[in-house]
Amino acid sequence: MPPAMREGGRLLVVGGDAAGMSAASRARRLRPDVEIVVLERGRIVSYSACSLPYYVSDVVEKRDDLVAYDADFFRRERRIDVRLESNALVLDPRAKTVTYDHPGGTETIEFDALVIGTGARAAIPPLSGMELPGVFTLRTVPDGDAIRQFIEDKNVKNATVLGGGYIGLEMAEALVERGVTVTILELLPRVLSNYDPDMSRIVSRELMDRGVTVHTETKVEGFEKGACEAVGYVVAGGQRLPSEMVIVSAGVRPNTALAESGGLELGKSGAIRVDARQITSEPAVLAAGDCSEAVHMVTGRPTWIPLGTTANRQGRIAGENAVGGSRKFAGVAGTNVTKIFGLEAAQTGLSTRAAEEAGLAVDSARILSRSRSHAYPGGGPLTVKIIFEKETGRVLGAQIIGAEGAAKRIDTVAAAIYGRMTVSDLAAIDMSYAPPFSPVWDPVLVAAGQAVKKLGS
Amino acid sequence: MPPAMREGGRLLVVGGDAAGMSAASRARRLRPDVEIVVLERGRIVSYSACSLPYYVSDVVEKRDDLVAYDADFFRRERRIDVRLESNALVLDPRAKTVTYDHPGGTETIEFDALVIGTGARAAIPPLSGMELPGVFTLRTVPDGDAIRQFIEDKNVKNATVLGGGYIGLEMAEALVERGVTVTILELLPRVLSNYDPDMSRIVSRELMDRGVTVHTETKVEGFEKGACEAVGYVVAGGQRLPSEMVIVSAGVRPNTALAESGGLELGKSGAIRVDARQITSEPAVLAAGDCSEAVHMVTGRPTWIPLGTTANRQGRIAGENAVGGSRKFAGVAGTNVTKIFGLEAAQTGLSTRAAEEAGLAVDSARILSRSRSHAYPGGGPLTVKIIFEKETGRVLGAQIIGAEGAAKRIDTVAAAIYGRMTVSDLAAIDMSYAPPFSPVWDPVLVAAGQAVKKLGS
Repeated sequence: MPPAMREGGRLLVVGGDAAGMSAASRARRLRPDVEIVVLERGRIVSYSACSLPYYVSDVVEKRDDLVAYDADFFRRERRIDVRLESNALVLDPRAKTVTYDHPGGTETIEFDALVIGTGARAAIPPLSGMELPGVFTLRTVPDGDAIRQFIEDKNVKNATVLGGGYIGLEMAEALVERGVTVTILELLPRVLSNYDPDMSRIVSRELMDRGVTVHTETKVEGFEKGACEAVGYVVAGGQRLPSEMVIVSAGVRPNTALAESGGLELGKSGAIRVDARQITSEPAVLAAGDCSEAVHMVTGRPTWIPLGTTANRQGRIAGENAVGGSRKFAGVAGTNVTKIFGLEAAQTGLSTRAAEEAGLAVDSARILSRSRSHAYPGGGPLTVKIIFEKETGRVLGAQIIGAEGAAKRIDTVAAAIYGRMTVSDLAAIDMSYAPPFSPVWDPVLVAAGQAVKKLGS
Repeated sequence: MPPAMREGGRLLVVGGDAAGMSAASRARRLRPDVEIVVLERGRIVSYSACSLPYYVSDVVEKRDDLVAYDADFFRRERRIDVRLESNALVLDPRAKTVTYDHPGGTETIEFDALVIGTGARAAIPPLSGMELPGVFTLRTVPDGDAIRQFIEDKNVKNATVLGGGYIGLEMAEALVERGVTVTILELLPRVLSNYDPDMSRIVSRELMDRGVTVHTETKVEGFEKGACEAVGYVVAGGQRLPSEMVIVSAGVRPNTALAESGGLELGKSGAIRVDARQITSEPAVLAAGDCSEAVHMVTGRPTWIPLGTTANRQGRIAGENAVGGSRKFAGVAGTNVTKIFGLEAAQTGLSTRAAEEAGLAVDSARILSRSRSHAYPGGGPLTVKIIFEKETGRVLGAQIIGAEGAAKRIDTVAAAIYGRMTVSDLAAIDMSYAPPFSPVWDPVLVAAGQAVKKLGS
């Protein structure tokens, strides 16, 4: 059970991003009496990390648009004591204290309940030359500022993106939008490797069509200086590839230093272990967002899938439970979507490989349809793949890639996963139809029907 | 139980639209041996009735695009004996015969199993002048041809649409697209009256903004000739409103004459009564599509909601069961969507009034959000209303109206209805997020969250 919060007690939140600020806001709504302090290492709270590639591309023109509410809003409107540039270092769960650095010195603060929302950081591969000017990661608003500035100052004409995950692909698009020629270097045999190979291939083709060079199974050895002081070459496979800028997008890692300083248990994933109420191994300490695990709806096992949606949800629940609530998190399906040039790519649940790794007997059905009625102009192809359990027909996952309408269609499958539906159930949902929005048989229904056929045979 | 079909037996299908051709095609796939005859009154089979407004507006430019497959395709590729201009008149279920008129005379055909897919027809209100040139209904491709021709020949500048249901509104848009000034006359106090009043108001505003005049609570008395032989005036409320063309869109009625000739039972709605296997009161006779009822997923009671999606689904099931199958139809949620100028309006399940009429204690939550992240340009407002059962929180229905993304979002709620989920369940679905497609909290989640709050209080 979470701790009961005494009248006028203090909730301490570490981390001012989605999870932390959701926790603080939720706690304030439920408990006007408690004191709420947020320690944020940086100078900005509550920004949209998912919008950063669009800030780099200038689709999001104003930096202010990245921030939903600033620190002063939280201080003024929600009486949340937001302390910026405050870097939490040591947690003592017995004494219920956190020690933190701030521009004025070091301080120790007591808490009745603590929510850790320290998020994740960009993984930094151990490559020579990572420190060179022009080598960037993208995780924070200042990262976005620096990349924009560098492109403008140096009039960058070509760049390399390390990593073909969805953030890498979004960054490739952002740079192309800025007139930069982009090469993606991916260690694995394909980009977007959390998708099935037959689906990520659609994305590879789109990248090629847009003039992006993709080298897979390519191990980067390091970076070298060019004519100026900045990066000039990427060394990979014994070759020196000229590159005026490098974006390292090699995944993220949970920020667990504070949790570890207090001896909190980590899960197998390396993220902070929590129960369904977001409580860690210490009853007065909760964790939420990219630093913590969550239960996967399909496998029922702890997983670590850092996503903004999850951070918001877990944050709210942690905030509620930290001040005496007892709400449970329903878990994650890992639903995600991204825009890659003219494509939408969306995914929920398990991929075929992830399902196999979870020990499930898995089959799948893939169909090609269209986003609109054949009679109605516009729209385009839409490929839907449903992954299901061989014996029972239970929906385990889905991937949808196409010109339009992939993003919100995946949510229907996410609903089916939440409801533990079979492919027969999915095929029986009464979905909408009008020529501008869908063929009479929605592509998801066609895929589900195909799966039912395989199940019967 | 449906009839077992003997080897080489004959399946007769009456009606060549979605339901009939789906039934015939499904039967052929399952039973290569049976003879399949389709009697179609008109000259076209398998056309997209839902695309007709877009044919009138010229968004769909080619008449051929309205037809997925023509009669010859079915004859050649599926060995289905399609007989056009064949008007079924009398059913004798004991003798298992149907008598029909065709250009060569009258014929009686025997069957082992019959699928009735006679569809629905436009309701013709008993108004004087209905027969005048320039007064149209829109249900068939020839109706569409005639309207297009009339607009071009007469260079129509202003027109009246009788009825503010979704087909009336789609026709209003189609005419405006053609440069015609449109007035909508609606008997009820508002347009789109299958939506809740607070939702249909959003649509009224859009119509006004687009220059469409809407008169509600207006009873039309008849039509009068103008200077030429065609309609020139609509008489309503004692006034003569000049109108060079009239589209009568006063709802549809099930075509049940053939069923009645055979003594088949009709439901309360006036449509043909069927069980979950699409079997009528006569065991060798099945019915599907707009001529038949269906069970509503929410109320569990028979209902009549004529929609193309349902016609396709019921048709397939009727075709399967007519040749020895035993598949059940899961029922309908009445999910529908329409485009009205710059708006998408989507609905599933029961409206507040329909829920009350079904004897349910009902509450609702309505929220205004946006279709994309606040940081991402484009998109627009999106209003979501969730209707739920007061005590249990069960999701009964939803309505979504907005600039974009309403259509496919409604399917997520349709999935929740299929799964008999509560608003708490709906709020816990792991929906997708990326700035171009949604705010971090999808509008459906926000509405569901609002509903949970109301439930708790």
